[in-house]
Amino acid sequence: MVEIIDGGVTTPQGFKAAGVHSGVKYRSLDLGLLYSEVPAAAFCGFTSNNVKAAPVQVMMEENSPTLSAVVVNSGNANALTGRRGIEDAISMKQSVATELNLDPVQVGVMSTGLIGRFMDMHKIRYGISRASRELSCGRDADNQIAEAIMTTDTIKKECAARVRLSDGTLVYIGAISKGSGMIEPCMKVLHGTTLSLVTTDAKLSPDFKQVWQEILDDSMNMVSVDGDQSTNDTCILLANGMSNGGYADKDPEFIGALRTVMTRIARTIAMDGEGATKLIEVQVEGAETKEGARKVVKTIINSPLVKSAIFGSDPNYGRIMMAVGNSGVNFNMNEIRLTIKGGDMEVPILDSGAPIFQEERAVEVVRMAMDNKEVTILVDLAVGNESAVGWGCDLTYDYVRINAEYAT
Amino acid sequence: MVEIIDGGVTTPQGFKAAGVHSGVKYRSLDLGLLYSEVPAAAFCGFTSNNVKAAPVQVMMEENSPTLSAVVVNSGNANALTGRRGIEDAISMKQSVATELNLDPVQVGVMSTGLIGRFMDMHKIRYGISRASRELSCGRDADNQIAEAIMTTDTIKKECAARVRLSDGTLVYIGAISKGSGMIEPCMKVLHGTTLSLVTTDAKLSPDFKQVWQEILDDSMNMVSVDGDQSTNDTCILLANGMSNGGYADKDPEFIGALRTVMTRIARTIAMDGEGATKLIEVQVEGAETKEGARKVVKTIINSPLVKSAIFGSDPNYGRIMMAVGNSGVNFNMNEIRLTIKGGDMEVPILDSGAPIFQEERAVEVVRMAMDNKEVTILVDLAVGNESAVGWGCDLTYDYVRINAEYAT
Repeated sequence: MVEIIDGGVTTPQGFKAAGVHSGVKYRSLDLGLLYSEVPAAAFCGFTSNNVKAAPVQVMMEENSPTLSAVVVNSGNANALTGRRGIEDAISMKQSVATELNLDPVQVGVMSTGLIGRFMDMHKIRYGISRASRELSCGRDADNQIAEAIMTTDTIKKECAARVRLSDGTLVYIGAISKGSGMIEPCMKVLHGTTLSLVTTDAKLSPDFKQVWQEILDDSMNMVSVDGDQSTNDTCILLANGMSNGGYADKDPEFIGALRTVMTRIARTIAMDGEGATKLIEVQVEGAETKEGARKVVKTIINSPLVKSAIFGSDPNYGRIMMAVGNSGVNFNMNEIRLTIKGGDMEVPILDSGAPIFQEERAVEVVRMAMDNKEVTILVDLAVGNESAVGWGCDLTYDYVRINAEYAT
Repeated sequence: MVEIIDGGVTTPQGFKAAGVHSGVKYRSLDLGLLYSEVPAAAFCGFTSNNVKAAPVQVMMEENSPTLSAVVVNSGNANALTGRRGIEDAISMKQSVATELNLDPVQVGVMSTGLIGRFMDMHKIRYGISRASRELSCGRDADNQIAEAIMTTDTIKKECAARVRLSDGTLVYIGAISKGSGMIEPCMKVLHGTTLSLVTTDAKLSPDFKQVWQEILDDSMNMVSVDGDQSTNDTCILLANGMSNGGYADKDPEFIGALRTVMTRIARTIAMDGEGATKLIEVQVEGAETKEGARKVVKTIINSPLVKSAIFGSDPNYGRIMMAVGNSGVNFNMNEIRLTIKGGDMEVPILDSGAPIFQEERAVEVVRMAMDNKEVTILVDLAVGNESAVGWGCDLTYDYVRINAEYAT
């Protein structure tokens, strides 16, 4: 049984971390370093955006099956930086390798922040040198690296779990993530700007790639804050095997635990979407295909009209159906079911293709359900057996404010 | 040569219109009626959303090649209203037919407003009866029908043109439209909520359908306020032939004039997008395919991050490239050109895949270009010869406000 515990990326055995202020940002921590005492099997997912940031390009080209360290900076995405950006990303790896006495190919690199500005490598190198000396494990180290990768995030995205494998081995999983805006990741393994670092002391074979993709598809890739996929999204899972058990690749307990951790992280990202005041969970059932179910989820959580309505607890549920219709996915109009849940209320909306509530007084019930920090939209398309779940947030004045003055 | 003139839908010969207050809305005009003295060749475009409003379903099924009248109401979309909605839409046609002594199949019907509420047919019938008696031509009639179809619109969308055909015939074109939110029409002929009525006294054969689709694809279907395609989008072109000329189907002057009118209407809709303070025009060149060029335009104008940045004149041009990359369309990263125009400024952004401006002071030039009521984004993908143009608007606090409290 998976047990969620207080912890972070250094909770699994053999991982150390640090977060420092390099000066790329004016004040806050802006450079993080993660280190594994032994080379860890690495499973990386990268953005599907065709404009890929320099660190993503470098990582995808090297495609190293193992990594010993990952360096992350915030404040500058090193994206849209041409040849110089590539050189800077490579240089970041080399600096870490020199400091920690590693082969540069064993060092991962991730960046997040403003697009289109060259990196100040003087500051970055200073930060790497300092972080290398400050590597440690424990909650302080967890907090520092988590803080160093944040941009417009207001809450730390962190989760840790403990799970006993079928062979009796006790393994740990730790995860941190950042991401608040420009969020609709579609990360392909080997192939967010959400950046995530997931550590485990379980032992995994290269074949775990497929399972990792499935977990990403059901967790991180089902989050959307604004439908804008970043140039930098990267998610790295490091498995260093220090728990000393056998391969956990096919262990249902391990897979379940990793899935739980990633789902929690995904929900936290949605909840902390730029300007968000509410988490929106969309559950689609009764679809003909899994892909179709996912498409309906995404169309609903990306609709600015649905998002604004939920912000204002405006019971304009017609907009949800508008989004369902726009998805292009097949459904049965006469049997489709729409339910809105919030708090302890669960309000069915449709009957035979028309809303149950027509009177203002009755509509008030829907408003009450929507007036919660967490609103769930449940759609049964009534044509099949496939389902999907995804997470988004409301569209608020603050989203506009944050993004109208980001570069300044 | 096309000449834009002061006029509306009753400017072409033989058209009359009226706009009245039926009571569906609390105060303002909410029911419009358009009438042609002789049956007019009708070319209708309807939403591609799979959740189609009742009037759209009824019109698509009848698919009448000619129409003598079109009734439009605002305040209630008659969408998501099941069987009762269908009956109400049919009943609206019948009421008009009775009042004007027409075959019901000769009457078009369009609705816009709140989704998911049944129509108050008592009020609608009263409005139809009154509008039938008030039909007239001239600027007052134009204004009344234009006002009657408005919802959150703040400006009237109207355009008229006069053009001399190759055979010497002088023909007129008049158009009105409404639409401010839930706007990303993808209307297919015979087959937004933008509602548009276009009248002409030119003579058109049924074959004109193809040309009409092309014009819609380059005008109305290239507008996006929020990426949310409505359940009700409808665009009806009525050609009553009363100019007494020959068929204008292939007359380049006529086609050019109609294209000019529809492009003006499209721009006005974008300019008056809910909460908009700026019109964004996106021009994409150098694409491999027309479809690809359109996709890049749409991805840019639908990006909430791009839209918010333009609202705040925030020179965060990396977001435009993020959107280009997200479109999935092919481009040459080393030769792609990005230019931002505003007022009399034209600012090139990229050089060999990296931004020209790196210093805060230089970036100020971009901010000045963005600080205009009309901002043009020009992207040359550098891989082909196809191009497309589209229109959108900025994402503002007012968009959120309007849509957080729409139903209330």
